[in-house]
This record gives sequence, C-alpha cells and structure tokens, in this order.
Amino acid sequence: MINRRTTMIVNIGKIKLGWGQPIVIQSMTKVATTDVDKCVKQVKELTQAGCGLVRIAIPTKADSEAFRQIVDKCDVPLVADIHFSPARAIEAIEGGAAKIRLNPGNIKDQDDIVRIIDAAKMHGTAIRVGVNEASIRELGKEKVDIPAENRVHLMLKEMEYYVRLFETNKFPNIVLSAKSADTVRTIEVNRAIAEKFHYPMHLGLTHAGLPEDAKVSSAVAIGSLLADGIGDTIRVSTAGDPVKEIEIGREILKSLGLIETNEPELIVCPTCGRCQVDVVKLATKVKKFLKKIDKPIRVAVMGCIVNGPGEAADADVAICAAKGKGYIYRHGKKLKSVPEKDLLKTLEKEIEKL
Amino acid sequence: MINRRTTMIVNIGKIKLGWGQPIVIQSMTKVATTDVDKCVKQVKELTQAGCGLVRIAIPTKADSEAFRQIVDKCDVPLVADIHFSPARAIEAIEGGAAKIRLNPGNIKDQDDIVRIIDAAKMHGTAIRVGVNEASIRELGKEKVDIPAENRVHLMLKEMEYYVRLFETNKFPNIVLSAKSADTVRTIEVNRAIAEKFHYPMHLGLTHAGLPEDAKVSSAVAIGSLLADGIGDTIRVSTAGDPVKEIEIGREILKSLGLIETNEPELIVCPTCGRCQVDVVKLATKVKKFLKKIDKPIRVAVMGCIVNGPGEAADADVAICAAKGKGYIYRHGKKLKSVPEKDLLKTLEKEIEKL
Repeated sequence: MINRRTTMIVNIGKIKLGWGQPIVIQSMTKVATTDVDKCVKQVKELTQAGCGLVRIAIPTKADSEAFRQIVDKCDVPLVADIHFSPARAIEAIEGGAAKIRLNPGNIKDQDDIVRIIDAAKMHGTAIRVGVNEASIRELGKEKVDIPAENRVHLMLKEMEYYVRLFETNKFPNIVLSAKSADTVRTIEVNRAIAEKFHYPMHLGLTHAGLPEDAKVSSAVAIGSLLADGIGDTIRVSTAGDPVKEIEIGREILKSLGLIETNEPELIVCPTCGRCQVDVVKLATKVKKFLKKIDKPIRVAVMGCIVNGPGEAADADVAICAAKGKGYIYRHGKKLKSVPEKDLLKTLEKEIEKL
Repeated sequence: MINRRTTMIVNIGKIKLGWGQPIVIQSMTKVATTDVDKCVKQVKELTQAGCGLVRIAIPTKADSEAFRQIVDKCDVPLVADIHFSPARAIEAIEGGAAKIRLNPGNIKDQDDIVRIIDAAKMHGTAIRVGVNEASIRELGKEKVDIPAENRVHLMLKEMEYYVRLFETNKFPNIVLSAKSADTVRTIEVNRAIAEKFHYPMHLGLTHAGLPEDAKVSSAVAIGSLLADGIGDTIRVSTAGDPVKEIEIGREILKSLGLIETNEPELIVCPTCGRCQVDVVKLATKVKKFLKKIDKPIRVAVMGCIVNGPGEAADADVAICAAKGKGYIYRHGKKLKSVPEKDLLKTLEKEIEKL
C-alpha cells in the first residue's frame, strides 16, 4: 500500500539498500568491542531477532583489531561506527566493514574525508553520511545558540555540502541520515532530504530514552516517515538490551505492512459499556494460542455484535462474544453460535482448519 | 513547531474543539452504563488521567436513563455512543450529552438523521459524524468484497454525502472521523478528509488490540496525522483499562510537543561499545527522582563523551558518564567533573537548583 520513494541502490556487503529492497532493521552492540566473544554473541542474538545490519563502535585501535576478528566470525554485514578519527575509519574499511557510519562534520580535515572515500572505494565499502542536530551547533569547542526553527535548514545545508563532496569524489555508495532528539524536526529534516537527494536513507531518533519511553516517540518519528515512503533502513534507539530495539523496529514495520512475516495478527475490540464478556481475558488466551501458529492470518476478538461483524469482515477468523455465547465468523461469514465456555476451543479449531 | 490545520471551532459542552484549541484526549467507559456509580467512578478516573471527553455507550433505553444520571454527576463533557437507534440518539441529546457519536450509515432512514440533527440543534449538542471502513462494506446484511485500494475513496465519498446532509440541514457543529483497523488507510483517508473539509477531526485506529500491541500502531497512525497538523481530538483504542488509553494518548501528544505538561523529559543515550558505565541503571534512578519534579525541564543521561556533550546541549542538565567519573553540564556548558558514586547526588542538586 505504501509507495516507497525511488532511490539509488547501495550495496552493503551481501545486502542491498534502497528502492525495491526490504527495509532493513539495524541496531548496535552494547558490549565492549574488544571483548570479541561477547560481541559476536550479541551480533548473533540481534541477527536472530531480525536485525539485518549490526553496527559496532570503534573508538580505539584495539577496537579496530577486535572488529577484524568479529567480521570473520559473523555472517551479517557489519557497520563500523566512527567518530573523529580518520585512522579508525580506514582500519575498519580494511578490516572488512560492509559500511562505515561517518558524521563527516566531526572529521576535522577535509583531506581525511577524501582519504576515507578512497579507501571505501577500493574495498567496496558503503558509507553512511550523517548529520546530527547536535553537531551543527558546534563551532570548534563552542556551542552556538541556534534557534530550533533554523536547525532543519542548517542540517539540510550541511548534508548538501557533504553529499556534493562525495559526488565530486565519484562515490555514490552512500546512505543519508539526519538525526535529532526532537520528533518533529526528525520528520521535517528527513522529508527535506528525501525531496532533495536520491540516496537511500537511514531513519532514527537519537537518544530516545528508556525502552518504555522510547517506543511511542520512535514509532511516531520513524512511522510517519515510513508511511510517506521515506526510509530504507531504521534504527530504534533505546537504552538497554539492543534486542528490544529490533522488536520495536519490527512492530513499526509490521504496523505499516512493510515487513513480510508469518506472525498472525490479533485484532481486539477496546470494549465499552455494551460488552458483557471479559474480552481481555479471552484475547490474552487467543494471543497465547497464536504464538504457536506460523501463518500470517488475521484473528479478531470482538466484545459485542454492534461493531463486531463489520470490523471482523477482514479477519480470517473472528469471535463476536455476547452474553453467555459467541458467534464464530470466517472471512466475514457467520459460521455458528457457541456457548461461552466453548468459544476458545472452537476458535482454535477454526484457526487450525485454515 | 507543528502548524495545526485551520478548522471551524465546535463547542462541546464547556470545551471547544478545533484550530487554536488544545488537542483533546478521549476514551470510553467500559463498565455497564446502567451501573451508574461504577460508570461515574470510571469517568472520574479517566478525567484525572487527562481525559477531556468521555464517551459512554447507550445501547438500550435503560442506558439512556442511566446516562441522564451520569451527566448530572460528572463535570467533564460526555459523549453518547450511538449505533443503529435514532431513539437512543434523541434520548441522549435530551439527557444532556455534550456530543453524540453517530455513524449515520447505520441509521436506516434518512429522515431519522434529520430528526437527530433537529434535536441536537435545539440542545446545542455536537455530533461526531463517523465513517468506518467496516461499514462501507455492508449492503443490508451482506458483506461486499471491496478491494482494499478502493476503500479510502469510498469512505471519503460516504463522508462527503453525510457532511452535505448536515450542511443542507444547517448544522455545522460536527466533528469528522474516519476509522479503519489498517494503519496506512487510516492515514490516507484522514489526509483526504482534512484536505476536503474544514471541520475538526477525531483520530483513532479501530480495534487496535491488547495495550502492548496497540501502542506502536496507534502511535504510527495518530502520530503521523498529528505531525501533519491533522487532528483535534484523539482516542487510542486498546482492550482493557481505559486509563491506559489516556496514558498512551498523552505520550503521543508529548512526543510531538502538542501538550502542555509539567512533566520533566528524560533523554537517555542508547549506549554502545564505547560505554563504560551502566547507563540504564543510572537513568532508571534519575527517572525515579524526576517523578517528584513538577517542572518541564529536560534532563539527559549520556554514556560517553563522544555524542554526549553535543546531544546534551539542549538539556537543562546533563550527565556524560565516563569510566569512574562523569561530567555535569548545564545548558550545554560543562560545570564540573564528579566521581561516579556522586553522579546521581550531584545531578539531583543541579536539578533542584533550576
């Protein structure tokens, strides 16, 4: 249903990013990079959860050396997260990074950026070109007080400057990202970038917070852009276990039909004063049962016969519960009435028939 | 930051809905309407949680009578939820509903709709004019198989038909809503309605699911529209305790800066391989402390000095934690370095100074 924006296609190791390609969920390892075993273990946990690109921080030379070993032990493409140091960037490229993440604004000398581009060209490495709202406010060691309403424009200008630098150096293998801790500016700046450039885009909200706080703001920021067809890879940032980031990312993509999944979908009516059964209890049991089902069916649990039948029309199987009994629907057609105590069992049988 | 769409202003009891007015979070009672005491209790719980409009289902004549008593006992404007029955609509209007929710498509006889309009006109009652994706698929008792891609257009057509009916009957006190269980179609149809009409709009995603499942899809659907300036009242639908709906609604509005609040905001860095402190533990403690603060300050807890200082520049107070110590920032300026064990205490003192 969503018309994805057309972009160039960028190769990142064995995967491709951009128009017509699946949207890739990414995350970062959060253990010391030098602890190779722990790091590899976390990469694998992330991959199993559905992470298609794993980023690893490379702050020191020891991390570069560890990164080389991690690359050898992992199957998923790895992204090296680089800040400030051209040496780290080049070490990571030579060490087998499929992509490096670079905020060119924090590499002081422009000649160093060109050296990084040359190394990436030679090794077929992709580069994420990042602009952060925070960094446009730095002038040397000073913070500049830029009114919030001007920052989107300045981030766009900075992005334009660096994209032209990469293009001048004949390097099109780039993914663009512009990040802010503010939801509205994240949406604005990414829309502006999507309009101006034709490279794949990385979406995220920086420093969103603890998982329970980050879920809604990330869903609003990333979801809004995806709904407009913008975004080729996403990262949900939350403090704590990175697997949680993947789960939220998958939820966002699922809510927009942007991910292929065999997980069944459960629709539950919110209930109201009309409802005469414990819908939450029933739905929780159905949800538990659905965990065993590996087929993308849609199941609805409705608490009354007012909205129930209509809303359930799109469901493969539905229950509309009434007092003491319930009606089972298949593809919007009423099959039968069953006593309340047999509802769950009958629903399970109908689901198994599908 | 968000330019709200200009709309007419609609009076709903003592509150106003539309352009320039606060966005109102609403929910529904989920206990039997005839149980007046329980219902009033739930209305008050909702109001305390931040609910500005409470909807109550009126399926039977007994509910209409109970509704009249509930109106007398509640301070917040109440919305009567009506389906199928013109008699219930008129009873609710006469019983003191500030607004009724009506899907005109499920009132069989058009003369009845006009009678309802006349009653609402006489009592100064507002009407929410609703179109549901489910209902456009009903033709009498039959379900019609309409391809998903045509439904947005048909919902818009149905909305247009009824808006013209209300306008012909000189009744402008309407709020429009178009609902679907599908996130993408919810966004599409509401954008189309926002473009075509100038009445306030009610946003929601029908039958979203259990609270843990409904959070992301509701944030994506409602948040996307709000970010575009669309929406004057919102309802998050989840099964279970309606107070949870209000909490999620508030989170969505907060994430877009659309609600005035004295709650402090906590930004936490997601951490990565650079991090040498337990950021989640520290942030959880800071969060607990912030619960006591009744001032809309922004506090940041950062795990390293790479992104920390830049990202923390917008925070009123920030910690950038390093190995064994941390730096305290106020409005982006470094104040001092403190040993790890004193970080929390020093941060608390700085917050109290504000």
